Amino acid sequence: MSYADEFEYREDGCVTTPAGFSAGGIHAGFRRDPTRLDLAFVEADEPCCAAGVFTRNVFCSAPVTVSRENLSGCGYGTARVIAVNSGNANAATGPVGLDNAHESARIVADAVGCAEDDVLLASTGIIGIHLDMQPFRQAAPSLHARVSADIQGGHDAAAAIMTTDTHSKECAVTYTSAASESRGCSFSIGGMVKGSGMIMPNMATMIAVITTDAPLSGPAAHAALTAAVSASFNKVTVDSDTSTNDTCFLMASGKAAPSVSIEPSSAAYDEFLAALTAVCVKLARMVAADGEGATRLVTVNVSGAADSSDADAAARAIANSPLVKTAIYGHDANWGRIAAAAGKSGARFQQETVDIDIMGMPVCRGGLTVPFDEDEALKRFEDPEIVIDIDLGAGTAGATVWTCDFTHEYIAINGDYRS
Amino acid sequence: MSYADEFEYREDGCVTTPAGFSAGGIHAGFRRDPTRLDLAFVEADEPCCAAGVFTRNVFCSAPVTVSRENLSGCGYGTARVIAVNSGNANAATGPVGLDNAHESARIVADAVGCAEDDVLLASTGIIGIHLDMQPFRQAAPSLHARVSADIQGGHDAAAAIMTTDTHSKECAVTYTSAASESRGCSFSIGGMVKGSGMIMPNMATMIAVITTDAPLSGPAAHAALTAAVSASFNKVTVDSDTSTNDTCFLMASGKAAPSVSIEPSSAAYDEFLAALTAVCVKLARMVAADGEGATRLVTVNVSGAADSSDADAAARAIANSPLVKTAIYGHDANWGRIAAAAGKSGARFQQETVDIDIMGMPVCRGGLTVPFDEDEALKRFEDPEIVIDIDLGAGTAGATVWTCDFTHEYIAINGDYRS
Repeated sequence: MSYADEFEYREDGCVTTPAGFSAGGIHAGFRRDPTRLDLAFVEADEPCCAAGVFTRNVFCSAPVTVSRENLSGCGYGTARVIAVNSGNANAATGPVGLDNAHESARIVADAVGCAEDDVLLASTGIIGIHLDMQPFRQAAPSLHARVSADIQGGHDAAAAIMTTDTHSKECAVTYTSAASESRGCSFSIGGMVKGSGMIMPNMATMIAVITTDAPLSGPAAHAALTAAVSASFNKVTVDSDTSTNDTCFLMASGKAAPSVSIEPSSAAYDEFLAALTAVCVKLARMVAADGEGATRLVTVNVSGAADSSDADAAARAIANSPLVKTAIYGHDANWGRIAAAAGKSGARFQQETVDIDIMGMPVCRGGLTVPFDEDEALKRFEDPEIVIDIDLGAGTAGATVWTCDFTHEYIAINGDYRS
Repeated sequence: MSYADEFEYREDGCVTTPAGFSAGGIHAGFRRDPTRLDLAFVEADEPCCAAGVFTRNVFCSAPVTVSRENLSGCGYGTARVIAVNSGNANAATGPVGLDNAHESARIVADAVGCAEDDVLLASTGIIGIHLDMQPFRQAAPSLHARVSADIQGGHDAAAAIMTTDTHSKECAVTYTSAASESRGCSFSIGGMVKGSGMIMPNMATMIAVITTDAPLSGPAAHAALTAAVSASFNKVTVDSDTSTNDTCFLMASGKAAPSVSIEPSSAAYDEFLAALTAVCVKLARMVAADGEGATRLVTVNVSGAADSSDADAAARAIANSPLVKTAIYGHDANWGRIAAAAGKSGARFQQETVDIDIMGMPVCRGGLTVPFDEDEALKRFEDPEIVIDIDLGAGTAGATVWTCDFTHEYIAINGDYRS
């Protein structure tokens, strides 16, 4: 599953790396701090193929509803611009929130000069508060005037969507197609994402925007995005909470091979999916590593599960266990907590067949403790990424989930802001 | 569901409150600190009806396996003594652990003078380490010699089973039967429990021992215990982790009405079940309130769910949400986190029909925010128990779950012990 190793990431890669896109960020006024960017545009040179996947939370925000509509309810369609604001999530705002989301789409469409249904929206920030339209009205024309196809445009957009993220998160890959229909073409995929926990009042949603110059059909864009998100962002858990605003968009300009159309179930599609998954996994790992208060990225690899649903359940139970996450914070190779989390997950296995490695060190074999070098373990816990491998010994299915450790800083961010 | 209000709890109530039981605690040597009691016996005057319910974790400890055997695999049978040690959980110890558990049952049987299969066992403490037999051999005869039917005997037993609990947890009720088969009889139920999180190396399992002088048949004891545990201990979540050793035993001496037998589906059974549930709920709330690092007991009441499975899922999602638990620690009436947790639980509802009260204050109506007095909210958060009521507006089913807030102290207990 280490897609990340199969592709070379572009230095300074971002959403403007693929041909056909401009981007930018501005301080529009959703936030009080005038030094913080809070509105991002990612614009295609002209309306192009777009797809989206959204939160499955019953509580979903108004921009999610409007973006779903603008993708014709089927998850793909055309778009000219993706507008993301931070500072206000426009969630739990009822009919007024929906009117405001439509109004903001109109404002963006007017500024960019496109149809209203070619605008895709995402919002992140405080919930339950009506979105102020004034920042949209004032800033949309100036932001459109300053978007650029260079690296700075991408970087500004990535900065403008941050909430409690400690840094912006971007990457891009370029690959050369070997598929017959597009042999020799060079395709790029760029992306940006924000994390980093589901908090309110400063609700920090997962919002990702991916761009590509590969010539995808709508169904191909939607199928690839759904599959890539499932293997990446959906495998990240910071605190087991799913936000009301989670959104991932893909825009495909086709500029790298205008005469080609990549359709699902083709060799060119498979190539694209592998590269898109690499971009999404890279961004997803950045989200986990920058989880609220995190000091370590934690990778949980489950193998030997009876089926993939069991593998996923066991991996998530381990990754969501506060006891596992605090043990990692405490630099404790505590396999008992890992075993107990897997044991309560509902995954089918016998305790006598379980093997566990922490940072490559065998700590449990056949459900029993294995002596290990405590000093060596403490040393390995200094690594920025902690890897847990658990083989359930019940089959051949596997799953990987990413999380972070659980620290005093998490409590401080989420509990202390009142005191 | 406030069983607690329907019964009067006995002052100094404990496992020796019902007739026919003695109890005691001793420092046997499982722990290094000679001032800490670490072995408890609860003895019936002669072999009597007993029932048990156990952890469903795939990883289960050796004493759980042996106790299951001694209850004939059907969850009820006879027992003379329940022996609980703290300091070592005898979990993840393989065939040697099982031999040790059998050996400890033999030692206890010899000391008490009963059949080996009339011994029930539970252990709590470090996992993955073989149980030392020497403390059993040395202490079992002296402990049997000092068990007593008075209050101090019950209190010592309750103290001996503690791990990270900050105080021992006991209660008892006495009720007068109005059922025709036992009209006018006075029945007592006493109980003790330990919490308070699923930790290792100092693994803190949930272990409860309940005694009664009501004359229950085996099937009645098992049915009542299963139902009461389901409505009490199984509704407590401290950190969403289920331990390898969770155990709840019930012994019924019948001393209060030797000529009667209470069978399932009778009026006397229903009375008993209500009283047993009251005892278990009282103890369960003590466990939640004394969760690791907790400063507040949190009660989550879900109503208006489509069915009881939805109600339970929503209540658990809210009670397990680190964001909800840190908000309570932060004295923040943060209904957005409560709504988002319910929204991701899988429970079926529309966001437009959700009402939420925090400490009796309406904070959300129809999925939208309701203005409330922030100063009043802060004042109400000073209460030792925080109550969250959420009506999903999707049906008539409900559920109550108890948890605690999530604090710096939890991270310190579970993450800092190495540093």
